[in-house]
Amino acid sequence: MTDRGVSDAGITAQITAQLRDQGIADLTVFDAITAEPEMAVVETCRDLFVQHQCDGIIAVGGGSAMDTAKAVAVFVGDERPLSELFGEDQVASRRYPLICLPTTAGTGSEVTNISILADTEAQIKKGIVSNELLPDVAIVAPELTLSCPPSVTAASGIDALVHAVESYLSNFATALTEPYSLAAITKIRASLERAYRQPDDLAAREEMATASLMAGLAFGNAGVGAVHALAYPLGGRYHLSHGMSNAVMFVPVMRWNQAACPGRFVALAHAFGAAPDIRNAEAGEYVLSEIQRLCDAVNIPSQLRAFNIPESALSELALAASGVTRLLRNNPRELSVSDIEDIYREAY
Amino acid sequence: MTDRGVSDAGITAQITAQLRDQGIADLTVFDAITAEPEMAVVETCRDLFVQHQCDGIIAVGGGSAMDTAKAVAVFVGDERPLSELFGEDQVASRRYPLICLPTTAGTGSEVTNISILADTEAQIKKGIVSNELLPDVAIVAPELTLSCPPSVTAASGIDALVHAVESYLSNFATALTEPYSLAAITKIRASLERAYRQPDDLAAREEMATASLMAGLAFGNAGVGAVHALAYPLGGRYHLSHGMSNAVMFVPVMRWNQAACPGRFVALAHAFGAAPDIRNAEAGEYVLSEIQRLCDAVNIPSQLRAFNIPESALSELALAASGVTRLLRNNPRELSVSDIEDIYREAY
Repeated sequence: MTDRGVSDAGITAQITAQLRDQGIADLTVFDAITAEPEMAVVETCRDLFVQHQCDGIIAVGGGSAMDTAKAVAVFVGDERPLSELFGEDQVASRRYPLICLPTTAGTGSEVTNISILADTEAQIKKGIVSNELLPDVAIVAPELTLSCPPSVTAASGIDALVHAVESYLSNFATALTEPYSLAAITKIRASLERAYRQPDDLAAREEMATASLMAGLAFGNAGVGAVHALAYPLGGRYHLSHGMSNAVMFVPVMRWNQAACPGRFVALAHAFGAAPDIRNAEAGEYVLSEIQRLCDAVNIPSQLRAFNIPESALSELALAASGVTRLLRNNPRELSVSDIEDIYREAY
Repeated sequence: MTDRGVSDAGITAQITAQLRDQGIADLTVFDAITAEPEMAVVETCRDLFVQHQCDGIIAVGGGSAMDTAKAVAVFVGDERPLSELFGEDQVASRRYPLICLPTTAGTGSEVTNISILADTEAQIKKGIVSNELLPDVAIVAPELTLSCPPSVTAASGIDALVHAVESYLSNFATALTEPYSLAAITKIRASLERAYRQPDDLAAREEMATASLMAGLAFGNAGVGAVHALAYPLGGRYHLSHGMSNAVMFVPVMRWNQAACPGRFVALAHAFGAAPDIRNAEAGEYVLSEIQRLCDAVNIPSQLRAFNIPESALSELALAASGVTRLLRNNPRELSVSDIEDIYREAY
């Protein structure tokens, strides 16, 4: 399961050739996965899996390909409609092996237990959350990201940074997730701009691939917070990409969060390269300016108005975001509906 | 499966009571696991498992209890003699669930794929290495380490420190193991002496339990090196405990290693609390002095002569240690037999 871009880059042919060399010749290739995948694609792939009597799934691509594959892997053999699998632990079991190969550095989907799909009717993105979704094998090969175009490198790289920062600030961060969150931040700060400007810089691609993996392991266990909660309605209603919608909400949400946990922002500031003796009072502003600088360096628009969203929609978006309690409960500072609306206005 | 010390501390009764509350009443308790376990104990436990028709194993204890349990879990149902399971990937499969609860902070055995047993005939410690040994569940509850006596807190704490340092320096260290190695060092430096002097300090116990877990995850993937290789013959022939034999070889082996990788020692020095601007040339000595200071603070003898080992035995020990290629290949600097003998002499 993959997308046209991956096939056009020759990656699909390379992998199928390797599989055939190993005697695995009876392959069904589906390379029409769409960005920000909708539920219908999962149903199509499920039918294809059954029709071709497949034995397992190999997903090659970004978050869209991997999330679709993860959903298909647990949907095969389930008699219920797909909509009943949404939410936490609504999945029965996965009976077929699942291998993921990311071609972008950002999603971390190869090591997380969640699949995000667009519910076109409800106009919101929804998640299937279950440990059954965890791939059996993740092959993180930086070479596969070399063909990733600069705009995708930028958006997915900032997505990985959001994962790292939000997992570090999560109420459910642990001693086992914190070192990965912080190491991912340091790597992204050092390598994202280089991977963006010089797409064939393999060393930069390797640092980004590792950072994305670490951030995935961190947020897969600690969760993400309000940046993601406020991003989901933007993707669901105005079709902003996952990476872009996170990027645009990143600084405004962090400005809100910093008041709740100044000590955590000192650790974040150090990961972002601050001097060892940076003071508590300066750490928040330092982190915000570093995030903004990085977003600017890779040309991520920093205002919602750049995305054709009418200002009149903000209160409705706030209402939708306030319903994403699965993520808001991870956030270090609580948000009311009017707090959320204020943050959208700041981002506008 | 546990030992007398754990039962005497009331932990066995507490856990069996909890299991009975959950309707798991048909329990077989074996609490005669010995320190530095021998192969015969594994055979005894295997017979007990079969005789009582057990359904799985819960190990409660330090490295000895967990390593014995891990060996029993893969030995049950294997028709071969135990000796044929030693080495890498000689195990068929594990058919019964295995849960580990460490009562010391040091071994990390609850998350590693190895069981170390004493081969009394060959007078050396040998390992069964296989991913089948990885426990299904590890419950790391710092409360279980509160009854750990100071001498064991010291030896196992230094053991965890060896795991952290050797895994960081290993030729097979990765981006995913390094942050755990370094975080474990920082925690042990901050908490070991406190846990040793104030055994009921739960905060110090929690830091040590977490550090031991992190160091276990790190060396379980990156491996350990020459400290362990040179420690094994001391345990096999002179019955030094695993923790003690590692501790006594720690500084001499690190003095040997530092010449090979000065840059890695700068990162180690930072984890040991050095100033950010410490120079390459100073980092090695700083790390050595910090390790020595920590060993002294918890009263670990620093000379082999303290353990009733004749100086005439050193060349034979060196020959035995040079055979532990499984670990020596991880070490950042190669060692000939005469290099090893020199290190034993320095430690003497």
